[in-house]
Amino acid sequence: MNAIASERKVHVPLGERAYDILIGPGLIARAGAEIASRLKGRKAAIVTDEHVAPLYLDVLVQSLEAAGIASATLVLPAGEKTKSFEHLMTVCDKVLEARIERNDYVIALGGGVIGDLTGFAAGIVRRGVRFVQVPTSLLSQVDSSVGGKTGINSRHGKNLIGVFHQPDLVLADTDVLNSLSAREFRAGYAEVAKYGLIDKPDFFAWLEANWQAVFAGGAARIEAIATSCQAKADVVVADERETGQRALLNLGHTFGHALEAATAYDSARLVHGEGVSIGMVLAHEFSARMNLASPDDARRVETHLKAVGLPTRMAEIPGALPPADVLMDAIAQDKKVKGGKLTFILTRGIGQSFVADDVPASEVLSFLKEKHPQ
Amino acid sequence: MNAIASERKVHVPLGERAYDILIGPGLIARAGAEIASRLKGRKAAIVTDEHVAPLYLDVLVQSLEAAGIASATLVLPAGEKTKSFEHLMTVCDKVLEARIERNDYVIALGGGVIGDLTGFAAGIVRRGVRFVQVPTSLLSQVDSSVGGKTGINSRHGKNLIGVFHQPDLVLADTDVLNSLSAREFRAGYAEVAKYGLIDKPDFFAWLEANWQAVFAGGAARIEAIATSCQAKADVVVADERETGQRALLNLGHTFGHALEAATAYDSARLVHGEGVSIGMVLAHEFSARMNLASPDDARRVETHLKAVGLPTRMAEIPGALPPADVLMDAIAQDKKVKGGKLTFILTRGIGQSFVADDVPASEVLSFLKEKHPQ
Repeated sequence: MNAIASERKVHVPLGERAYDILIGPGLIARAGAEIASRLKGRKAAIVTDEHVAPLYLDVLVQSLEAAGIASATLVLPAGEKTKSFEHLMTVCDKVLEARIERNDYVIALGGGVIGDLTGFAAGIVRRGVRFVQVPTSLLSQVDSSVGGKTGINSRHGKNLIGVFHQPDLVLADTDVLNSLSAREFRAGYAEVAKYGLIDKPDFFAWLEANWQAVFAGGAARIEAIATSCQAKADVVVADERETGQRALLNLGHTFGHALEAATAYDSARLVHGEGVSIGMVLAHEFSARMNLASPDDARRVETHLKAVGLPTRMAEIPGALPPADVLMDAIAQDKKVKGGKLTFILTRGIGQSFVADDVPASEVLSFLKEKHPQ
Repeated sequence: MNAIASERKVHVPLGERAYDILIGPGLIARAGAEIASRLKGRKAAIVTDEHVAPLYLDVLVQSLEAAGIASATLVLPAGEKTKSFEHLMTVCDKVLEARIERNDYVIALGGGVIGDLTGFAAGIVRRGVRFVQVPTSLLSQVDSSVGGKTGINSRHGKNLIGVFHQPDLVLADTDVLNSLSAREFRAGYAEVAKYGLIDKPDFFAWLEANWQAVFAGGAARIEAIATSCQAKADVVVADERETGQRALLNLGHTFGHALEAATAYDSARLVHGEGVSIGMVLAHEFSARMNLASPDDARRVETHLKAVGLPTRMAEIPGALPPADVLMDAIAQDKKVKGGKLTFILTRGIGQSFVADDVPASEVLSFLKEKHPQ
């Protein structure tokens, strides 16, 4: 681990699309100064949602104004349903109405939904305008604000329509995480733990020892977020357009997505990070079943995720789940089955994940039937 | 000029986004074989419009089928209004419904409207799937099918929302141009002449001598289209994302767009190529007025465009035009005025166009008042 600091910067070296992620307290109040010192434009369109707006919109607008940046604002409904064509059109219209040109900015102030939707709009208005992310959830700070994936949902599935559009700057204000519910913070933490499990065993061990300090805030939290952003940035830089190793970021997500689909994306039952938590335990258990890893590793993962308060078992999801073969169908739809084989992120132990592209669908189904007998 | 051939291939060398443009007779009937020999996928979604579908859709579908490529089809209303968010959503939905994956194809069968809309959808479904263009108008064969610009219109203006998404293959079937109206063919021809006027004086002279053969069809037509595609490809390769010299392609378009806006994009009064024709004459006359070029060049341009039957004067547009200052407003909105100066494509003579970024708006207005007194 690096030395603990009160503010961290992660540079994402993507050539002419390179950008910085600043991580620390009070960044929303300093947003205007940080943007004005780095970028040229003097106009912004801010997109946020009705939950975030009352808390941070005024602070952001005033900070921009003090730096000589005029802003138009758009407040959308909160929730996954906002990632729709209809709202995409609303955002594009607002950005054009505000006469945002190529050097001005579109700013996303919110969690993953606002970031994905707004980034998509920034990627298509005038075939691409500058984009600044101010992620306000732990999940968006460590995941969706790094990597340039943007998008909306379709009736055919989540995130099926979008573009790659890298932000020009990400301001991850760690103070705002204090306003998250414990459940929301934990859900974001599942992704933090994921980076340890992919290829950073030392980071996972550090989290096991320091997770309470991460939850409490302060330097340990900044460190955990910076390490996560750096981990994702490393993967993205190696594989920007997701043709290979970027798939590692899906550790726990294949099972997780199937569980999200099985609960009809009802956040009262399961949120994304909780699905990932259960999914990571399942991925480690399945790897043990395939004789790739020790069952002890799966126990260790479960013990840690349980300690922070995350669900680790399908049985913890409120309400009935569909039978194993229906879950298997959801997995097959997500991943494509070729000749009875699936691509899956498996592991040889803590921090030793790998992309397996020849996992027999029949093995996955047997495993699911064991874990979730009717 | 190159040797005259019965089929031509123009390669657009854009690195990993490189592609070929095939130009010749009977290409729709051979589409399946041409696609299958170059690309891997075995599924296609074809988007076309109600004018083109009865003429060529069956031929294309059968050609694909014979090559082992299954296709879904979507027929949209013809006309500029189809470049809307609503139709974009329809196309994306159709492509997803057809389960088009990254290696399969979305095929645009039609003119510029269908190409721009469909290319946009191909650029955003699954963050980009393969795209094959089968342009059916002269304008789309020599202009919109080269360069990767895609997009839709907004109530704030034309083409304001879109992405850069290069096609994987362009099949320009020169037989289909026989079904265009004389007016439509001429409108496309304005863009052909434009390539000569930008930087190919020999090509312009060749067109002056051979335009009747180009209109008649056969080898001269193929040659003119190939030369145009190559000319546009050269500019695009030098400046894919339009940061500099690509602006040369806008020769005649600043005045032309203002005239299109002034006629409310009513194609009964003015179509795009006609606006470009008048605009190119105006650009040469304005260059002469600025003492950059000889007035003889403007006369020569006008003489040729008139000979092929294109309008060359604002007075030829049916119905009343707004006064010069309103046209000037439209130009200012299109181009942005910085400190009273505009960026304009001017010329020092036939085939000697250049980007001028310091043209006084006041000079343009005086010129327009002379050319279009109230």
